[in-house]
Amino acid sequence: MSISMTSIPATKRPSISRRALAVPPSPIRKLAGFADAARQRGIKVYNLNIGQPDIPTPPQYFEALRSFNERVVSYGHSKGHIKLLEGWSRYYQRKGLDVTPAQVQVTTGGSEAIQFAVTLTCDAGDNIVTSEPFYTNYYSLALGASVDVRPFAAEPALGYCLPARSVIEKAINEKTRAILICSPNNPTGTVLTRDEMATVVQIAEEHNLFIISDEVYREFCYGGTHVSIWQFPQVAQRAILIDSISKRFSACGARIGALISRNEAIMDGALRLGQARLCSATVEQLAAVAMMDLDEEYYAGIAREYVSRRDVLIDRLQKMPGVHCETPHGAFYAMVSLPVDDADRFCQWMLTDFNLNGETVMMAPGAGFYATPGSGRQEARIAYVLEKPALSKAMDALAAGLAAYK
Amino acid sequence: MSISMTSIPATKRPSISRRALAVPPSPIRKLAGFADAARQRGIKVYNLNIGQPDIPTPPQYFEALRSFNERVVSYGHSKGHIKLLEGWSRYYQRKGLDVTPAQVQVTTGGSEAIQFAVTLTCDAGDNIVTSEPFYTNYYSLALGASVDVRPFAAEPALGYCLPARSVIEKAINEKTRAILICSPNNPTGTVLTRDEMATVVQIAEEHNLFIISDEVYREFCYGGTHVSIWQFPQVAQRAILIDSISKRFSACGARIGALISRNEAIMDGALRLGQARLCSATVEQLAAVAMMDLDEEYYAGIAREYVSRRDVLIDRLQKMPGVHCETPHGAFYAMVSLPVDDADRFCQWMLTDFNLNGETVMMAPGAGFYATPGSGRQEARIAYVLEKPALSKAMDALAAGLAAYK
Repeated sequence: MSISMTSIPATKRPSISRRALAVPPSPIRKLAGFADAARQRGIKVYNLNIGQPDIPTPPQYFEALRSFNERVVSYGHSKGHIKLLEGWSRYYQRKGLDVTPAQVQVTTGGSEAIQFAVTLTCDAGDNIVTSEPFYTNYYSLALGASVDVRPFAAEPALGYCLPARSVIEKAINEKTRAILICSPNNPTGTVLTRDEMATVVQIAEEHNLFIISDEVYREFCYGGTHVSIWQFPQVAQRAILIDSISKRFSACGARIGALISRNEAIMDGALRLGQARLCSATVEQLAAVAMMDLDEEYYAGIAREYVSRRDVLIDRLQKMPGVHCETPHGAFYAMVSLPVDDADRFCQWMLTDFNLNGETVMMAPGAGFYATPGSGRQEARIAYVLEKPALSKAMDALAAGLAAYK
Repeated sequence: MSISMTSIPATKRPSISRRALAVPPSPIRKLAGFADAARQRGIKVYNLNIGQPDIPTPPQYFEALRSFNERVVSYGHSKGHIKLLEGWSRYYQRKGLDVTPAQVQVTTGGSEAIQFAVTLTCDAGDNIVTSEPFYTNYYSLALGASVDVRPFAAEPALGYCLPARSVIEKAINEKTRAILICSPNNPTGTVLTRDEMATVVQIAEEHNLFIISDEVYREFCYGGTHVSIWQFPQVAQRAILIDSISKRFSACGARIGALISRNEAIMDGALRLGQARLCSATVEQLAAVAMMDLDEEYYAGIAREYVSRRDVLIDRLQKMPGVHCETPHGAFYAMVSLPVDDADRFCQWMLTDFNLNGETVMMAPGAGFYATPGSGRQEARIAYVLEKPALSKAMDALAAGLAAYK
């Protein structure tokens, strides 16, 4: 070879794309390095930063792993294994929602369903509107696809409910292609009422938008009934439902989700996007099938557990001076207002400079759940995914940390 | 609810994005429905359309499934499980390529590594150049990300080797951000020589491009030595290596791949894209680890098997009147020129209208591997992924089919 390493000036190097630079680091995972360092110093860190439930994955998952008896771990259909398509359909039919296997595209986690939905509805430069604060990965996946997220502010003092119609419509412009809702909500725990859903439906019809409805927390509704976008037949051609087994079956690491729609162009497009990445993992799909027929008692038991955790959390938070948090009615998150200038710095400080009897807590700083600069700086998201004794100890550490923080 | 189903004219419906419409159906999978129908009529269909090896997945994979003993199938690190990052590194070190765990991003199949590479290097409206015919999913994944593919033609008569530098440079324009190479090549089986790789390196330096080097077929080199982009230190900041366990370990359904680079901005961006989709499947990653230390005898045994299959295939093809196919030197594909007007129609006819003693063959029509309209219409891709007796019977059916086709 005749190529010299010095033939090209060092400054002449390709730079990565602007969109890749724009994708933010995960606020949920950004403090992981500080938590690791704390653990290495012998500190016990309670992980309330990430929606990783500690509920055991059902035994059906593990039995499916052990009983897989093919010689070759081969590709499956790009749409998803037929048994899993049928499994999703059965799950929905039991919920009273008429979803057929043909209306399901199996995805690699809810994440891929969101990515597909963004790509299917938006060209580069288009945008989606959604309530703020929002699940950060909506923002990351949209920016990675050259799609903007235009937020409308949910009101913290009103439990982050849907704002007035005029507020939502102000976010919509000529490049808006979809309105994205998440109920029960990550990161706020808010559950949209039937009236709020109807408002979303009306807005979508009036502005000719798709509705991307993330319902992965459907089973985590405390007190009210979940309202699905599938219950509004007038938006049959607009609705794209996002689902996942991750939280429902405490199987986040299986990476199995679904995109569901009655719109044939959307389903055809989803299949072609699916073919481009071949298939979701074969064994994980079969392991998911085994859990699709868990009965209502399974879900009810888990909901009871989370309600009792939530009550411990909210009771403790509301006793801390300067802390504000409305009682969330779904999912397993709470957005909490903290009496600090900069929650990002405080959350980091809790890992680097503080411990209570050798214990501390990791939370997700709030600013990462906002696109609007300056918003969420005094908030943090707490995921109540630990058993009550651990949660209680984590609250001891948070209370002491807030008292000690200048 | 006061919303009427007739309040909005039926014509006013949102349409899916232009980019989603542009993503083509998979040429590898497009005839699947006809094959299913043939099977339902009792016809035995030999699948030479898809790169799905019939070599058994190594026992280590299944042992890892069975021995997974966590209570919860939880999220892993977005970069990949540390054991798998180290496993990739060990694999490369044994090959004499100095890859560290930090230089590896675990991906959900090679597919996701390609998608990440396209997003990391290109903004919407940018393009990559690559040789044609190419693996269709490069095209699909690029179009889905609003990125163009500008092809330069490899020469069928010369075994689809790299064309002259001037031909490649004609494809490059001011929006070109990367040159994508695949060696050994899917769909042609061509292996790039060191001189050809050096030409690519020179072009990338001169035009300030990234080099995306898909090396998933590295272990399938028959006769020559594989040359990796990693062996060219002068492009350390330009090179993005795509890898996968799918073909190497006959584990296509595990969906485990890797993106590998020495460029820190690329690795940082890949991690943020990785965080946006959380992680690759936890159990599949651990099952992959177990296979990373398979020794050279494993690879050599598989290469011997594929060489003998290739020899059967090429010998049979070259005896068919009007069929042209150079001997491929790597991977397990051959692009074959057929004496038909439209290989798409012929491949479909083989499934719908033909059988030889109740047997027929499924191939991937060639046009799907080209972006240039009209190209590849007389070609088909054959994957020699079946054992020799089955391959031989498939060739019997193909020869008889060609003779019977008007």
